[in-house]
Amino acid sequence: MSPLPDILSQLNDDMRRDDDWGAVASYIPELAHIDPAQFGIAVTTADGEVFTAGDAETPFSVQSITKVFTLAIALGRSGDQLWRRVGREPSGKAFNSIVQLEQENGRPRNPFINAGAIVTTDEILTGRLPREALAEILQFIRAAAGDENIHINDVVARSEKSHGHRNFALAHFLASCGNLNNTPNKTLGTYFHHCAIEMSARQLAMSGRFLIETTKLPRLIRPPRIRRLNALMLTCGHYDGSGDFAYRVGLPAKSGVGGGILAIVPGVASVAVWSPGLNRYGNSKKGTEAMASLARDMGWSIF
Amino acid sequence: MSPLPDILSQLNDDMRRDDDWGAVASYIPELAHIDPAQFGIAVTTADGEVFTAGDAETPFSVQSITKVFTLAIALGRSGDQLWRRVGREPSGKAFNSIVQLEQENGRPRNPFINAGAIVTTDEILTGRLPREALAEILQFIRAAAGDENIHINDVVARSEKSHGHRNFALAHFLASCGNLNNTPNKTLGTYFHHCAIEMSARQLAMSGRFLIETTKLPRLIRPPRIRRLNALMLTCGHYDGSGDFAYRVGLPAKSGVGGGILAIVPGVASVAVWSPGLNRYGNSKKGTEAMASLARDMGWSIF
Amino acid sequence: MSPLPDILSQLNDDMRRDDDWGAVASYIPELAHIDPAQFGIAVTTADGEVFTAGDAETPFSVQSITKVFTLAIALGRSGDQLWRRVGREPSGKAFNSIVQLEQENGRPRNPFINAGAIVTTDEILTGRLPREALAEILQFIRAAAGDENIHINDVVARSEKSHGHRNFALAHFLASCGNLNNTPNKTLGTYFHHCAIEMSARQLAMSGRFLIETTKLPRLIRPPRIRRLNALMLTCGHYDGSGDFAYRVGLPAKSGVGGGILAIVPGVASVAVWSPGLNRYGNSKKGTEAMASLARDMGWSIF
Amino acid sequence: MSPLPDILSQLNDDMRRDDDWGAVASYIPELAHIDPAQFGIAVTTADGEVFTAGDAETPFSVQSITKVFTLAIALGRSGDQLWRRVGREPSGKAFNSIVQLEQENGRPRNPFINAGAIVTTDEILTGRLPREALAEILQFIRAAAGDENIHINDVVARSEKSHGHRNFALAHFLASCGNLNNTPNKTLGTYFHHCAIEMSARQLAMSGRFLIETTKLPRLIRPPRIRRLNALMLTCGHYDGSGDFAYRVGLPAKSGVGGGILAIVPGVASVAVWSPGLNRYGNSKKGTEAMASLARDMGWSIF
Repeated sequence: MSPLPDILSQLNDDMRRDDDWGAVASYIPELAHIDPAQFGIAVTTADGEVFTAGDAETPFSVQSITKVFTLAIALGRSGDQLWRRVGREPSGKAFNSIVQLEQENGRPRNPFINAGAIVTTDEILTGRLPREALAEILQFIRAAAGDENIHINDVVARSEKSHGHRNFALAHFLASCGNLNNTPNKTLGTYFHHCAIEMSARQLAMSGRFLIETTKLPRLIRPPRIRRLNALMLTCGHYDGSGDFAYRVGLPAKSGVGGGILAIVPGVASVAVWSPGLNRYGNSKKGTEAMASLARDMGWSIF
Repeated sequence: MSPLPDILSQLNDDMRRDDDWGAVASYIPELAHIDPAQFGIAVTTADGEVFTAGDAETPFSVQSITKVFTLAIALGRSGDQLWRRVGREPSGKAFNSIVQLEQENGRPRNPFINAGAIVTTDEILTGRLPREALAEILQFIRAAAGDENIHINDVVARSEKSHGHRNFALAHFLASCGNLNNTPNKTLGTYFHHCAIEMSARQLAMSGRFLIETTKLPRLIRPPRIRRLNALMLTCGHYDGSGDFAYRVGLPAKSGVGGGILAIVPGVASVAVWSPGLNRYGNSKKGTEAMASLARDMGWSIF
Repeated sequence: MSPLPDILSQLNDDMRRDDDWGAVASYIPELAHIDPAQFGIAVTTADGEVFTAGDAETPFSVQSITKVFTLAIALGRSGDQLWRRVGREPSGKAFNSIVQLEQENGRPRNPFINAGAIVTTDEILTGRLPREALAEILQFIRAAAGDENIHINDVVARSEKSHGHRNFALAHFLASCGNLNNTPNKTLGTYFHHCAIEMSARQLAMSGRFLIETTKLPRLIRPPRIRRLNALMLTCGHYDGSGDFAYRVGLPAKSGVGGGILAIVPGVASVAVWSPGLNRYGNSKKGTEAMASLARDMGWSIF
Repeated sequence: MSPLPDILSQLNDDMRRDDDWGAVASYIPELAHIDPAQFGIAVTTADGEVFTAGDAETPFSVQSITKVFTLAIALGRSGDQLWRRVGREPSGKAFNSIVQLEQENGRPRNPFINAGAIVTTDEILTGRLPREALAEILQFIRAAAGDENIHINDVVARSEKSHGHRNFALAHFLASCGNLNNTPNKTLGTYFHHCAIEMSARQLAMSGRFLIETTKLPRLIRPPRIRRLNALMLTCGHYDGSGDFAYRVGLPAKSGVGGGILAIVPGVASVAVWSPGLNRYGNSKKGTEAMASLARDMGWSIF
């Protein structure tokens, strides 16, 4: 009998006991009025079991977590060519910093900071229409989750676009360095749309199964690439809080400004947690705490 | 029967086939005249077996690899108080950069860049004489390796001190920010000495066993701390090449400018490789290649 | 009898003797195919005399030199309120750097680097249409020069807009920091148009007379403001080559990427020089040399 | 009859009316306990007249103002060779920043920030003993002032040395880049001693006469060099407040952390003001205000 149902139920109670939920991201107006006092968690195991607690069926904006899927797609399309345009090192800066981009001539440090994710989207978009690229991204995520009921929230996408000056600054800077194949408008239009995909914690945990590396589940990508995606999630998945997350939780994971976190226990499970209030690094406050607690209780660590 | 003897033997042959050994570090005069065309590797398993190939008995200057041991000691002495003085995030800069130190008011980003390791040494040194601190460091390493025949090369230590202007700049900067308890001269004297410890690949692999986390070996530190040390090695152990090493090799590891690398396969093995020629990140060129090859052949990855 | 005719004639000969004209700016396509082997100079004195030599009647794109006029207009409209949005310090960076903007939260260091000039244009534009703002700028320059035959080259303006990714990056970054009142598109549309104003060296020298500070000419702005504009030209007028220009020439001056330089001899003269080839700071190569030579020959220096 | 006596007397009264004297520099212990509520001013004219008001006879530590004299001496000894080791551009950073030094490979931006002044002292020191270099510096200043009663305060020099970690960091960094001819200890020993020279406002104004450029006074250096020193004072003399000082006061000037400012009115006068409380740029608060007021009242501006 899995101890997970009891552990998740207890975790859900613990998280709701403390009133400090963190602050919802304010720079995307559509996300700014979400109630921070929500918490949901879901675990899918390599054996195909699913366990949930709290608001695990509530859809939320997965935002930067989609960068894991677009990176998988871009590597599938372009292979190691992608690394000519973007690096694989932690940035040591905030997610939306432009300083590094100027100091390193327009090559973003990794695919999970905004500048790097814009390049990744641009790579997928090359030679195609935005709706074709978005269709592939959605199709990949739906196949990974085994769930056709995953959609883009168009209102959120448009809200981001009209308030996305920092991302436009990044895209134009990339263009000025010759590291954008499409116009900033076209690439960012696509980028904002895939960031606006909505999933529940259950759906997100299901969609992360392709990173578990197990023979028990159908394969979307080859094992060496799985390991590499997990490596990037560990070193770069939480922006300038990645080292701290690796130290405290010890699992590869990717966070989104919507309050979601997707974490992988290699060979064992995919975990999704959601709570919209953020800590000072821009990662889910309760989500990070819950991940640390769950990893400790289950003895999950890659180290 | 372990496949390791054949794999290591083959690896040794492969490494010696290619003539491009990289360049030996030139900024420490005593290390500058070492023949780069050397290669040794050693693996110690959780079961207590040891396998070696190549120049595995030749002692070399372990340099920054000692930072793993001093960090373990400092955490043992001061616990989480240490994190008031030094962070846990990858730096996104070269190992000896001073830029970040000014931008973040004298708190180094992590204990494995030079500034952070100087703070760690300073923490160990607090309230004691340099020879007492050095004795504890040597004792810890000898206990870990189960080998009393590990020593400091005093000539190398003095050579570093007389050419260590960059490290003196870091130490004085730390002092100017109030983040040094001892004088720069005293702290750096100790720092240069523990960096000048010499081990063979065999000794280094043996000394890394305390990070394997297994019940089969005597414990030097508790498992949660083992995992945390491994996490820091993965995210910060190769300076600004840490992300790349995690991506290509997928194991927690720490490199030294003397050409050594210590890598841990959690629960399984401790691996030491040595080849004095460096790549552009300042990490052993052949050592990095050998680690990638060995990890691939053995299916070793934490991801 | 003024020695200027002979000096200018000699200077023109000297400049044409050496074949190293520097390289024409390549990032604005319309300017990239201009013949670099051109040189013109004009001096207008406080007494109303005008002396010229070389290609002094050839119109060229004055580009960043217009920033002197837009700053004068913005100060006239908004007074010291402008300094809430932009600083008065040399930047220590290239003209189009975005690093400083992030480090100082979107307040450009001075009104002569691109980011600061975009803010200045934005200030003039507030509450008005681009064509109204452009009409005021043209009117100011024509009045200063006493010459109605000064126009915007619309082809150059459009060329800059379609290749101005770096400026769009700056404008969006300013907007993301709340330091842009108009849309990036509107402000930059205006900015690119006033940068595309064309004048000959003679016209430019005439237009600079309002900065001489003399009772012999009609006043466009009050003397204390004249001195302050000259101070900003001296400390910031040549981007990251300002200190060198002050050291070698010793006159307040503003350069443009089209190869023009406007320099002021307080109380004495306004000098315009033009040669389209640039040095490594992005300032006119022959223009800088000619200014140094003329200042030396005439004993002109503010120091 | 000169209006200066009345203007200085009024200025002295005005300055003492307002209680906000700024804060005395705290990082040099010997200077930290000085009463901030002091103010003295002295003007020496090209005609040889001297006017004073307030605490104009009180000796104070001139600190960084000595950098003007050491630069004059270094240029006299080494000529333009000096510029291989140090630049002539404003830094856009604090006086003691080390960031730029790393980014530009150990060549300080100008001779008035600490790193640049250390290089200048090192240049003077090359091939000599510290006491010989200090003797030359003192002799130059005494000759300039026509006053043998100018001395080094040895207690201040030693106090700076024992608390000068930031300057030691700069010197070691310079040494690590190969831009120091002497040991950090020797160069800084000399540097701290010449910074600890004490003068009254009267003596300082007298010592600045060699920068007036007039035929009425004996010449210490040639006029072209005078102009160049004044140019550097204008663009770099107040660290990251240089642009603001040029804008508000419009005179070449050099400040010191002891609260002194030496300003030059080319062809007309040398002005020294002293008030030990500093503003946020590290320049004398009342001193800056007094200079702005005096320049306005006398119509003194180089622009």
